[in-house]
Formats: sequence, structure tokens, C-alpha cells
Amino acid sequence: MTDHKKNNNGTDHLFLKACRREPVSRTPVWFMRQAGRYLPEYRAVRSKVDFLTLCKTPELAAEVTVQPVEIIGVDAAIIFSDILVIPEAMGMELIVEENKGGPKFPSPLRTRAAIERLHEPDPFSELKYVLEALHVTRRSLNGRVPLIGFSGAPWTLATYMVEGQGSKNFRYIKEWMFTQPADIHRLLDKLTKAVIAYLKAQIESGAQAVQIFDTWGGILSRDDFREFSLPYIARIVSSVQTTGVPVIVFCKDCGQALEEIIGTGADVIGIDWTTDMRAARETVSGRAAIQGNLDPMMLYAPIPRIEKAVSSILQYYGHGAGHIFNLGHGILPDTPVENVRAFVDAVKRLSPAYHT
Amino acid sequence: MTDHKKNNNGTDHLFLKACRREPVSRTPVWFMRQAGRYLPEYRAVRSKVDFLTLCKTPELAAEVTVQPVEIIGVDAAIIFSDILVIPEAMGMELIVEENKGGPKFPSPLRTRAAIERLHEPDPFSELKYVLEALHVTRRSLNGRVPLIGFSGAPWTLATYMVEGQGSKNFRYIKEWMFTQPADIHRLLDKLTKAVIAYLKAQIESGAQAVQIFDTWGGILSRDDFREFSLPYIARIVSSVQTTGVPVIVFCKDCGQALEEIIGTGADVIGIDWTTDMRAARETVSGRAAIQGNLDPMMLYAPIPRIEKAVSSILQYYGHGAGHIFNLGHGILPDTPVENVRAFVDAVKRLSPAYHT
Repeated sequence: MTDHKKNNNGTDHLFLKACRREPVSRTPVWFMRQAGRYLPEYRAVRSKVDFLTLCKTPELAAEVTVQPVEIIGVDAAIIFSDILVIPEAMGMELIVEENKGGPKFPSPLRTRAAIERLHEPDPFSELKYVLEALHVTRRSLNGRVPLIGFSGAPWTLATYMVEGQGSKNFRYIKEWMFTQPADIHRLLDKLTKAVIAYLKAQIESGAQAVQIFDTWGGILSRDDFREFSLPYIARIVSSVQTTGVPVIVFCKDCGQALEEIIGTGADVIGIDWTTDMRAARETVSGRAAIQGNLDPMMLYAPIPRIEKAVSSILQYYGHGAGHIFNLGHGILPDTPVENVRAFVDAVKRLSPAYHT
Repeated sequence: MTDHKKNNNGTDHLFLKACRREPVSRTPVWFMRQAGRYLPEYRAVRSKVDFLTLCKTPELAAEVTVQPVEIIGVDAAIIFSDILVIPEAMGMELIVEENKGGPKFPSPLRTRAAIERLHEPDPFSELKYVLEALHVTRRSLNGRVPLIGFSGAPWTLATYMVEGQGSKNFRYIKEWMFTQPADIHRLLDKLTKAVIAYLKAQIESGAQAVQIFDTWGGILSRDDFREFSLPYIARIVSSVQTTGVPVIVFCKDCGQALEEIIGTGADVIGIDWTTDMRAARETVSGRAAIQGNLDPMMLYAPIPRIEKAVSSILQYYGHGAGHIFNLGHGILPDTPVENVRAFVDAVKRLSPAYHT
């Protein structure tokens, strides 16, 4: 009997214990975009509906959420959704073409008046489909592994809303931020309130941990990151922690700001592959658990090379509690499934030595 | 009479003194892509010829190289060229469409045999146009400011050659690197020899300092950066330093690896805007000069905001020698010229207080 089957109420799962830095028998593993296109079973579901319909149909969202638990054997499920459902619920038109460069807002946010027009969504009505998907998924998981909810960080949501899509230079949001910082703070404040309500609703609906994704934190100078991203994340963390569930903060390309990210009070700090796990553990120094950090591109390598990379990261974190294995960013759509399984199996096989 | 006019032989210029961490009366300033599309005078020249013809016509390359010295008043010129002229000289077909996503290799490098077929170019024949442009530029500058030569770092050149163009995930080079690292090391070794010969030829032809650009160092894990990028940069630095000219190493998105970059022996370390200048100076601790690090997007802000940002960076570096002001990356094509001038003027006006 593996650890995560011991207790169906969810508080005794490997993943949740690792979030709380409690002793475990091995390092838990899950990975970003694990419910996704690399799985033929996902593509089969997705072929029948478009991306947003999949997000908005609780039974289908639950089905793809559970797939990697059953097919790959990950130690946590993360609800299938998109960070941009919040801006959509606030009144922005969202288009997602999964094969054409990702999500787009055809009418990006460019004026103070447009910021003021955004309304604060009630997650129990406008984002009800996510909450229902969480309910259905919890029932379907039936205690096998915990379920993670998530949201984009305010800065990252604001960036997408203003740029209209992913960007190389982030010219529009930066010009606005440098020119009229009060406008951007107003937007970030509205988003922060929406994210707090959304994450709390997710927790009420069954999420047993939540992750905040700051995908674009790394495009900011340290001063700007401290002004425009961190305080809003910190507000979310402290508000959501009153529920008692662990909060994971993942700021991509922010390895230089690790000390400040710890300062948000997050239970778990997600790191990407550009941060050295040894340095991260030394900096974090027992103040949080650490989640990460295999380069997703490593999953294109031959299996023995993948195993070697897993072994290195386990060794770099070293002995003791508080490590959750993950990729440093989302898995890519054409990753070979056998390599993904080998990666997860390697964590399970090689990690017990670090928990004796 | 400003410092940089005191001595025409070039050893007494503000910029070169700052490279050697010698006392100066104010902080010198130049910036990446300063000879570029934001200048109407550049666009006028460029409208007559395509990008590569401009690179390969010494009189025109010299003309645009000198423009920012005369129009903006920067303290150093950097030869107008492209890092990808080396792969082209090694036998790869290169296409540059300046308005369509940058340079492309229509037949990317994907096999060991193709690596073996690359020949080591003799810069005095196959890259003669760059060397002639340097000669013409030195004559045209007539000692007003020093002239900087440059090259891409082997890792960055290899990345472009294998991917064929800029990339989001760098899937091809990483898959190859993780699968057959010896092939990539072979490629990097060939590139290192080519870069050394090229930079030495540039110095013989009038370059008074050289910069190595590792634009894609930041996509690597720390282990991979240490294996696939740094040792090759270190070989170039030590070989080129035998000429006596200062070597600047700029690795984009590598702030976490500052200590290792210092270990290459570079005279000057370029940092992008995501690295805190205070932390950088503390880490570098007198072992090199530091070049940087204003966010290029700041140049879209109102002039008082630009001046405030310049003031902060000067203050963060603090008193004393060894700071060269620059942007954290290349300037964007639609940056307002008056803002660029205000940025350079602010460095000149505000920096003397830090050199008393």
C-alpha cells in the first residue's frame, strides 16, 4: 500500500505532507500541464470540443484532470482550466486557439476607463464551471491523490490583459506602468480581490492546495517586481492561508528574487530549471517547501539521461522533507508519454533514499 | 573639453578607463543596438539597401555606426553588424528580414555531418567586410570615442544555427544536447575557434574593446550553463585578452550565475535589468567593471521618469570607478529619439556626483 492511499480525507497524502514539510517515505511528484496534449487520451477528449468548452464542461474537465493520475501515476491532480478565465469573467472577450500561439484577448485593456469597467466576478456564478469541475474531480479521485486549484498572479493576468497575448517585449504594459503606475496598481488591486475570492471558492469546492502562477514576474526589474507583483501575491497568500490549505507560489524566471518570494509567506516555492536546487534550498533554509525543477526539454532525452537528471535534482535538494518534484515549467505537447512515465517512475524509485 | 576628447590614441577615453576600473570624471554611456532603426538617419540609409548588404558595405556600416555618436552623444561606438555573420561565413545560408522576426537559417543545423562540414572561416577573407568597416569607422571617428567589436557567444550561435531562428522552447538544440552532448561540444569547439580568430581580427582592424553576447545563456539550467556555455566563453576571454583590449561578457537572463561569469575573467560584466545593480556590485566586488542596466522599455516613459530610473541605477552602483551605463538589452525600433537623448544626457548630468 503506497502512502497516498492511507487516508482518504486528504490530509495524509504525500503531496500535502511535503507542502507542510512533514516527513514522507518518498518525494511526491506532479507536473505543470500534466493534463494536456502530450496524452493521447487528452487529445481524444479535446478532439470533440474546443479548449474553452473543455474548461467549461465540468465532466470533461474532471475527466482530463484525472487522466495523468491514472495513466502516469502522479501524486497530485491539478484542475484543468486556464489562468485567463478570471479576466474573461471580469468582462473581457477571450479566444483560445491551442495550436495558434495560445490565448488572446482581441480587445486588449488599454485605458483607465476600461480598467474601471472590469467588474469583480462572483466565482460562484461566473466561474461556477470551475467549481463544479472541482467537485466532480474530487468525487472521481475518491481520495487517491489531492486536488490542486490555481490562479494566475495579478501581475501575470494584467500583462496578458494589456498586451492581449503573450509578448516578446511587453511594451504596452511597461509603457503604461512607467507612465501611469496608479492605473496599473488599480488594475492589480481589482485582480487581487478577484483572485482571492476565486481561490477561496476553489478551496470551498474541493481544492486541497492552490498554486499561484506568476508566469511573467521575470520580465520585471527587481524594483518593479517588488512594487508591481510581490505585494499582490503576498496579499493573496495571507488571505488564502486563513483557509488552512497550503499555497504554492511559482514565479517563472525569478530565481534572483527568491528571498523576496519567501517573504510572501508561501508554504511552497516553485522554482524553474534555471535556479540551482542547492542554492534554492540554502536560501529557503527551511522557511518553505520547494517545488521543482526539471527542464521540461529534458523529457525529449533518452530515458537513462532523464533518470540521471532526476537523480541530480534529488541529490541537490538532499535529505529530508519539503521537496515536491515538478518540471520547471509546463510540459510540451509533443513530449513522448513513455519518457514522462519514466520521469515519474524515476522520482518514485530514486527518492526514498533521501527520506530515511 | 570633455574627457573623451583629451587623447586621440584611444587609451584615455572615459569608456576604456571605466573598462579598466580607473577613475573617471563621470560614468560613460552607450547602449546595445544604438546604431539602429529608432534613428531616422539609420532608416534613411537602410531604406536603400537590405540589412545584410548594409552589414557588408563597409562605408555604409561605418556611417550608421557613427550616427549615435553624433546624434545622441554616446561615449563608445559599436560596429554595425550581426552575430550571425560567423555561421554564415562557416557555410550556412542566412536570411535577415528586419521587420519579420529577425534572422533565419532556412536550413538549420541538425546532424553531426553538418557540423563537420562547417569550415573555420578566415576572418581576413570571409569576414573582411567587417574588418574594413572597422577601419573606415576608426578613421571616421577620428578618436572622438572608442570603437567596440563584438561576437555572439558559442552557445548563442549554436542555438540559432540548430533552431534556425529565435525560439520559445529551444527544443531542437536541447534535445540534441541532452541526447548527444558530444555533438554539441564539437560544434561549440568549432565556434569557439572561429570566434577567437574573428575577435582578434577585429582588434587588429581597430576594435578597442570587444563584447561577447550570450543572448541565450539564460535558457539553460545552471549545470548546463556551466557545461555548454561558460567554458567556451572563458576560452575566448583568455585568448582575446592577450591582445590587451578589454573584453565585455554579456549573458542575458543569467543574473543567478554572476559568480561563474566573473570566473571567465571578463574585464566587464554586462547585466540585464532583472539583476539588481546593488547585488551585482556586491557580488562582483571589484573583480570586474559592470555594464548596465536600464530596462529598454523605460525609454517609452516620460522623460522625468527616465531620469529617475537613471538616477536610481547610478545610486545603486554607487561611488567609484568601474560602471559603464547601458540598457539591459537592445533598444527597440520605435523608441522616441528625444527620450534616448534624455537618457544619455541624464547619465552625463547625474553621474559626476558619483566620481568625486
